[in-house]
Amino acid sequence: MRVLGIDPGLRNMGWGLIDVTGSRLSHVANGICKSAGPDLAARLVTLHDQLQEIMDIHAPDVAAVEQTFVNKDGAGTLKLGQARGVAVLVAARAGLAVGEYAPNAVKKAVVGVGHADKAQIAHMVRLQLPGVDLAGPDAADALAIAICHSHHLQSAGHLSRAVERASA
Amino acid sequence: MRVLGIDPGLRNMGWGLIDVTGSRLSHVANGICKSAGPDLAARLVTLHDQLQEIMDIHAPDVAAVEQTFVNKDGAGTLKLGQARGVAVLVAARAGLAVGEYAPNAVKKAVVGVGHADKAQIAHMVRLQLPGVDLAGPDAADALAIAICHSHHLQSAGHLSRAVERASA
Repeated sequence: MRVLGIDPGLRNMGWGLIDVTGSRLSHVANGICKSAGPDLAARLVTLHDQLQEIMDIHAPDVAAVEQTFVNKDGAGTLKLGQARGVAVLVAARAGLAVGEYAPNAVKKAVVGVGHADKAQIAHMVRLQLPGVDLAGPDAADALAIAICHSHHLQSAGHLSRAVERASA
Repeated sequence: MRVLGIDPGLRNMGWGLIDVTGSRLSHVANGICKSAGPDLAARLVTLHDQLQEIMDIHAPDVAAVEQTFVNKDGAGTLKLGQARGVAVLVAARAGLAVGEYAPNAVKKAVVGVGHADKAQIAHMVRLQLPGVDLAGPDAADALAIAICHSHHLQSAGHLSRAVERASA
């Protein structure tokens, strides 16, 4: 099963793809979608088009997106939400079930504790996906989200059901 | 020129369409897209599909979306942002320029002051669009946004340029 992780952001949207076979994880691809354009509308369209291209090329089976907001910064949270809405929409319109995880849940799944800095996350992602070449911190976070989702699906036998749903 | 106003929300997304001929405004249609589904992804897809249908049926030339966030409620602002991202994306992918207005700017354009309650807004929308049958407060707000955008385009000769851009 191929899992797409997305670390949403309006300027930089990290993405990472892993293949899950039994309990074995392997890296497929990772990168950063950068928005461009004179206004919000144009930027959202460029994010949409890049994400859609990733779907078309890599055909993931399931997706997971980080669930976060910017404390005490309504404008920042609104921007993030808009980018996140586009990410979830593209995955859902491609027929993918979309998991959502809080940052602490992702860190706990990948590093083992709920509080970890970006360097620790990148380090553990490299350990769990040998040979991976990380496009940047946002791409490392996206791979961490994909790893977190694969753990979640594997526990309690969610994996087989997710695969059934993906191939239905 | 046909102007689409959108009052974004994850549960209820108000929309309203007006035609602008010179300084004359006339009502075309208004309504509320209601999201449905077991999770965020499904709800965003239902909003997307309803907005896309409005585009297909009514073919607006320009769009405007309210710019707001929920103070001190990051989770609420994130939800709103996600819905707003989908609304802006659908309009932009349809080739429409998308205006953005703060709630106070909309109220000032329609009621004359920056602070007005929903009943005042609905009252002034009915006065400016005789015969309109409002689908609800969110639809009234959406028509107010469309009226605000038409005023903005009319001032400083923006209208002709917007029409050129829409027909380019």
